[in-house]
Amino acid sequence: MTVELICVGTEILLGNIVNTNAAYMSEKLAGLGLSNYYQTVVGDNAGRLKATLETAVKRSDIVILCGGLGPTEDDLTKETAAEVMGRKLYEDEKAWKQIVKFFEKRKLNLTENNRKQAQVPEESIILYNKNGTAPGIIMEAPECKIILLPGPPGELIPMWETYVEDYLRKLSPEQFVSETVKICEAGESAVETELKDLIDKQTNPTIATYAKVGEVHIRVTAKGRDEKECRKLIKPVVKEIKQRFGAKIFTTDENVTLEQAVVQLMLENGMTLSTAESLTGGMLTSRLVNVPGVSDVLKQGFVTYSNKAKRKYLGVKRGTLDKRGAVSEQTAKEMAKGGASQTKTNVCVALTGIAGPDGGSEEKPVGLTYIAVCIEGKVKVKEYLFSGERQKIRESATTAALTLLRHYLLECLTEKTFGK
Amino acid sequence: MTVELICVGTEILLGNIVNTNAAYMSEKLAGLGLSNYYQTVVGDNAGRLKATLETAVKRSDIVILCGGLGPTEDDLTKETAAEVMGRKLYEDEKAWKQIVKFFEKRKLNLTENNRKQAQVPEESIILYNKNGTAPGIIMEAPECKIILLPGPPGELIPMWETYVEDYLRKLSPEQFVSETVKICEAGESAVETELKDLIDKQTNPTIATYAKVGEVHIRVTAKGRDEKECRKLIKPVVKEIKQRFGAKIFTTDENVTLEQAVVQLMLENGMTLSTAESLTGGMLTSRLVNVPGVSDVLKQGFVTYSNKAKRKYLGVKRGTLDKRGAVSEQTAKEMAKGGASQTKTNVCVALTGIAGPDGGSEEKPVGLTYIAVCIEGKVKVKEYLFSGERQKIRESATTAALTLLRHYLLECLTEKTFGK
Repeated sequence: MTVELICVGTEILLGNIVNTNAAYMSEKLAGLGLSNYYQTVVGDNAGRLKATLETAVKRSDIVILCGGLGPTEDDLTKETAAEVMGRKLYEDEKAWKQIVKFFEKRKLNLTENNRKQAQVPEESIILYNKNGTAPGIIMEAPECKIILLPGPPGELIPMWETYVEDYLRKLSPEQFVSETVKICEAGESAVETELKDLIDKQTNPTIATYAKVGEVHIRVTAKGRDEKECRKLIKPVVKEIKQRFGAKIFTTDENVTLEQAVVQLMLENGMTLSTAESLTGGMLTSRLVNVPGVSDVLKQGFVTYSNKAKRKYLGVKRGTLDKRGAVSEQTAKEMAKGGASQTKTNVCVALTGIAGPDGGSEEKPVGLTYIAVCIEGKVKVKEYLFSGERQKIRESATTAALTLLRHYLLECLTEKTFGK
Repeated sequence: MTVELICVGTEILLGNIVNTNAAYMSEKLAGLGLSNYYQTVVGDNAGRLKATLETAVKRSDIVILCGGLGPTEDDLTKETAAEVMGRKLYEDEKAWKQIVKFFEKRKLNLTENNRKQAQVPEESIILYNKNGTAPGIIMEAPECKIILLPGPPGELIPMWETYVEDYLRKLSPEQFVSETVKICEAGESAVETELKDLIDKQTNPTIATYAKVGEVHIRVTAKGRDEKECRKLIKPVVKEIKQRFGAKIFTTDENVTLEQAVVQLMLENGMTLSTAESLTGGMLTSRLVNVPGVSDVLKQGFVTYSNKAKRKYLGVKRGTLDKRGAVSEQTAKEMAKGGASQTKTNVCVALTGIAGPDGGSEEKPVGLTYIAVCIEGKVKVKEYLFSGERQKIRESATTAALTLLRHYLLECLTEKTFGK
């Protein structure tokens, strides 16, 4: 069963708004196991909308349109869809009563063109709108079903939850279930190569990789009669992936981020963390703080942007800064050691580097970064060279710091040099 | 001249990611005066991509595709586009060298399938990628031009700014020039109401508003024979907008961010800054650090997430924390005062609040935030109640802090209580 989305609105084509409706509906459709092969955005233009819709009904089993159900002249979705399906419009009494009530409630003046919103195509299912004036509409034909939904997310989402989700579930022949394996310390192409044999012979479940900044996500999706059957199909594949990537996998939970995995690891081992950031300027700490409950782990963050601050708060030696420079292995080490002892935390992560655009040299180019991790007094440091704009370099450094922190934590935990 | 967008990626169709690339490019195209009538999203499927592209080249002058340029098997955009345009692929030496360098820099293992990314269609313009491995490509034919761009925004946006913007500007039949007025301290609907008369009677130049987190951008776009004529048309409109919004306008430069405007203001007045963050956890400092040259202004940032750290590094009184709580007007004030005196900076901004999801109460709900600004020893504090998820609350608080800092700076500067 294939579904296709058509979002109607010139404001999307002008970039005034981001098309979050498409993302919302896409995710819901995936969960229902309905294949969504096309998404189209067209403006409030009858000709182009009609052409788009005619193409859609030919190639898809269900076409969902959102937007263009308003009362104004340039709202044409309903009229166009009715024309394509060969249905006449009539005024639905209940819809009109609801519109009148909606306006009375808000003490707004009803205008004649609001009547337009009570018009519905004959032989259609009407989805009454509790959060706005435009009713949703479902038109069924043997070859294709068309669903019309209002554009404002505040109206579309409740209408989806109230009517559309159940309507579509009944149509979905099979159940789809996905599991995601998230990997750090490996690029997408390396992951692909490692999985090539599995991907080549994939049928059900399917395997897809998604590249994120410093991460790769592998999604395994199975279809079956019910969730139990899907999970059974997914299990051996995820097991195989786990064997291949081992500790590079930081979670198999779709909703867990890298920073969450790191915070969780530290919580489980009763460890505390401090940070000392230079080029990232708080970006690492900010990502950690986005994890609810991080306060049990994260005690203090320093943004020591100036050399003076590096000396005063982290005890970096003047000699180190003079001889080796602020961006050096030695400075990173002293930042991490100093941060840990200052804050009396088990662990401190320190970053120093050149974010650019200026400040680079032949010997120390823009992007050069040193990340040091101090665990129970022992410091390890790694050199990186990140590329891109200032912001990109800082984002890469932040993800690299989380990855390195996790790496050394696991190393120490297996060596049992500390723990619970 | 009509342009059409095709975004390629199953992750968009599955709702894994929101299609922000389409919004970014749409806004840019509108600014260039190029008509964007269709946006389509297709998955990593050769057949459907080919069909979509064939339709697009028939009805549009320029087709921009993004995504699907990766090294993996399911990245098919380049191969499909080359096929549609009847071009063979060959390995571009420079592109390959760049990929090799990219991997060496990062000490990552180059795999055979990375070679795929160095393949480019014959007779095409190659847009070398400084932020990733996939080069962008422009293929020109009499009836249609095709532009291929990488999917990650961190690669697409710089490539657009470096090559695509100028390339498209040259193709635009008329000259379009835009000026952007950026406003803080006002919501979009308030701005629109204030501009209603101008927007209603707009023809050339046109006026469009764009809502951002805590900001509203007004874009004034004029079309004319040349830039000079456009600027002449824009000038009086921008002047009128300036009169209406006054100090709420933080810049009239498209490329200047709110944090840049604040840093610039402090630089011009020889002021130094420190930050003391709790709920934002470094997000404010991180945004400031994204401004090149910030080191002359920003001296130190504290992420005092624990009460202990608030006392130790900012000198917040135990009594204040006990009686008023960590999230209180008094704590925010003491954080700002303490941060300034600790670091001997003219200015310190402090934030404390409840980011949620837990920690809220009847009397102190999730989203409650106090932002304090200490300038030359004088502290002002403001209470906010932000809504949304944890991340959204923290982003809103960060923008609010920059806005409040700017507001008080201007106040003090006009009162001449300090300065150069």
